[in-house]
Amino acid sequence: MDLSLLYETIAAIEPADPAAVTEARAHQDRLTKPRGALGALEDVAVRLAGAAGCSPPPMPEPAALAIFAADHGVHAQGVTPWPQEVTQQMVANFVAGGAVANAFAAQVGASVTVVDVGVAADLPHAPGLVHHKVAYGTADLSAGPAMTPEQTVAALEAGISVARRLVAEGARCLITGDMGIANTTASAALVAAFTGHDPAEVTGRGTGVDDETYARKIEVIRRALDANGLRPGHAAAPLAALGGVGGLEHAAIAGFILGGAAARVPVLLDGVIAGSAALAAAALAPAAVDHCVAGHRSAEPGHAAALEYLGLRPLVDLELRLGEGTGGLLAHPLVCAAVRVMHDVATFDSAGVTEKDA
Amino acid sequence: MDLSLLYETIAAIEPADPAAVTEARAHQDRLTKPRGALGALEDVAVRLAGAAGCSPPPMPEPAALAIFAADHGVHAQGVTPWPQEVTQQMVANFVAGGAVANAFAAQVGASVTVVDVGVAADLPHAPGLVHHKVAYGTADLSAGPAMTPEQTVAALEAGISVARRLVAEGARCLITGDMGIANTTASAALVAAFTGHDPAEVTGRGTGVDDETYARKIEVIRRALDANGLRPGHAAAPLAALGGVGGLEHAAIAGFILGGAAARVPVLLDGVIAGSAALAAAALAPAAVDHCVAGHRSAEPGHAAALEYLGLRPLVDLELRLGEGTGGLLAHPLVCAAVRVMHDVATFDSAGVTEKDA
Repeated sequence: MDLSLLYETIAAIEPADPAAVTEARAHQDRLTKPRGALGALEDVAVRLAGAAGCSPPPMPEPAALAIFAADHGVHAQGVTPWPQEVTQQMVANFVAGGAVANAFAAQVGASVTVVDVGVAADLPHAPGLVHHKVAYGTADLSAGPAMTPEQTVAALEAGISVARRLVAEGARCLITGDMGIANTTASAALVAAFTGHDPAEVTGRGTGVDDETYARKIEVIRRALDANGLRPGHAAAPLAALGGVGGLEHAAIAGFILGGAAARVPVLLDGVIAGSAALAAAALAPAAVDHCVAGHRSAEPGHAAALEYLGLRPLVDLELRLGEGTGGLLAHPLVCAAVRVMHDVATFDSAGVTEKDA
Repeated sequence: MDLSLLYETIAAIEPADPAAVTEARAHQDRLTKPRGALGALEDVAVRLAGAAGCSPPPMPEPAALAIFAADHGVHAQGVTPWPQEVTQQMVANFVAGGAVANAFAAQVGASVTVVDVGVAADLPHAPGLVHHKVAYGTADLSAGPAMTPEQTVAALEAGISVARRLVAEGARCLITGDMGIANTTASAALVAAFTGHDPAEVTGRGTGVDDETYARKIEVIRRALDANGLRPGHAAAPLAALGGVGGLEHAAIAGFILGGAAARVPVLLDGVIAGSAALAAAALAPAAVDHCVAGHRSAEPGHAAALEYLGLRPLVDLELRLGEGTGGLLAHPLVCAAVRVMHDVATFDSAGVTEKDA
């Protein structure tokens, strides 16, 4: 198994630059606004300065959304009312431009790339669809490892490759997206494994399940942790945890995060799929988190747990539970606005505005 | 006193169209996403359909920000550490393009119009600055009415005129902005008068005041209500309440809201200044609220009280406390995204996507 791309990427990731952070904070305080008046947006601008290693940080435009699509063996356990073929149908919808992610991307001027890392069907070639198929879906995580070690690494490296390509093509912000029927089950298992929360605390109703299915979903996640030798909070071997209970799109998104961080291009995280993938990325390379911004907080309880563990504050909190990258896309103008302030706004001195009495 | 423009505007305001609301909700449920998966954004799209009287509603682009600037006699009571001349200095900053509102407007593609409704100085003519000066600031609201009835109506009508002009020039979304040192004091007094909250519950630290100033601010608001014959929750005569404790920019923003509502163009509200002005607009014309969207929730406690009273849910909640329209501007891409979904996204039928099992 060749781990060179993964290791090389991890080695390239730098933590936040403290000098840039200090300079960015000082610059914020000179601008014509009361100190701290932009609330959490000031922290975003400072965070991106640290990640970029300069203040002001570069404008995070243009943005590129990558939607990683894959299927899940655990679908057979009845954890969702949606048929598995919806994954491939939605891929076709993304490619045709008909999904919510396409509408949001058009609104914020982001490009859309759809990546097949593991859809359980052969997909026709189409513009905007990238083929990195690692497998026709994962194995059933409730019975043993969802992925082999080779598959896990291949999916991670697919994500790294997509990040590299998008950055080479000019993207200055990467946005994570996902599509995979049953993927909130894998997400909850990852969140439990990495954060130490009990499965019942981090399992949600995904795209809409009834009480019976919800109870089954929690039970399936418990079995998955057992079957893979994992206990909540004991994911000491991140590749084994990711391969054990993750999905191919989770591994690819983890790689996408690592690839963005290595290139010092900020990664705007979508919902619980991205949050759980970010836990894996952070376990592989803790400094990767310094390059992430949490786009939103989804309605899935595991997402809040993941963000808290990572120390990330979500920008949008509107009870979205769609995935696809929609929450990350919505946050992109907010991130741009936060950074634009650092470039455009006058200082008290330059504008001749009087400061308040000390 | 000629009230004809005000009364004509109020008479033209239609409440939400229930047929359009029903059609918009049904349309949301046909789109290729789980029902309700866009959370609060679905409500925004449905709300705008009701306001416009058609589904899907028109795209709320382009947006126009109007920043209403005025000074406050209550400044003499020491309710803020900022000198009064900062109002006019910031007007110059807006006109020069150097303020945060300018940066945010550039980010979301909104135009910026600055309106002098009551700055305590003669301002030079400049592109983008509209002169509607009603007075050189208000009288001290803690000693009696801040405005005469004539001034109150003139400021309301200035706001209506600006809304009409911006809509005639093509704006399809109006965003409220404000500038006025000491204007959170007037806002808190309006919120107390209209909602029934005690002044201590709805008074905040504005752009940053210490404990002593904060205590004085609350006491000033109590005296203002007394001096104007108002008690919390007893603003039966909205024009008298608005004139008694409001500012010229509050009255102008109330008129701006009425003008947008009369033209069926949605009004995106900024923070506590807009929220308190919306209370006055709603008291004058309850249906006006159907045309408002709350852009954000500011750090000022009176803002949350105003939004709750109006039944509005804020879209952005990032502890901003700047004013100028910054919170409304940040929310504009979210509102556009919500509406764009109604125009662009495929239905389950049209995209050939299977719905979940019932």
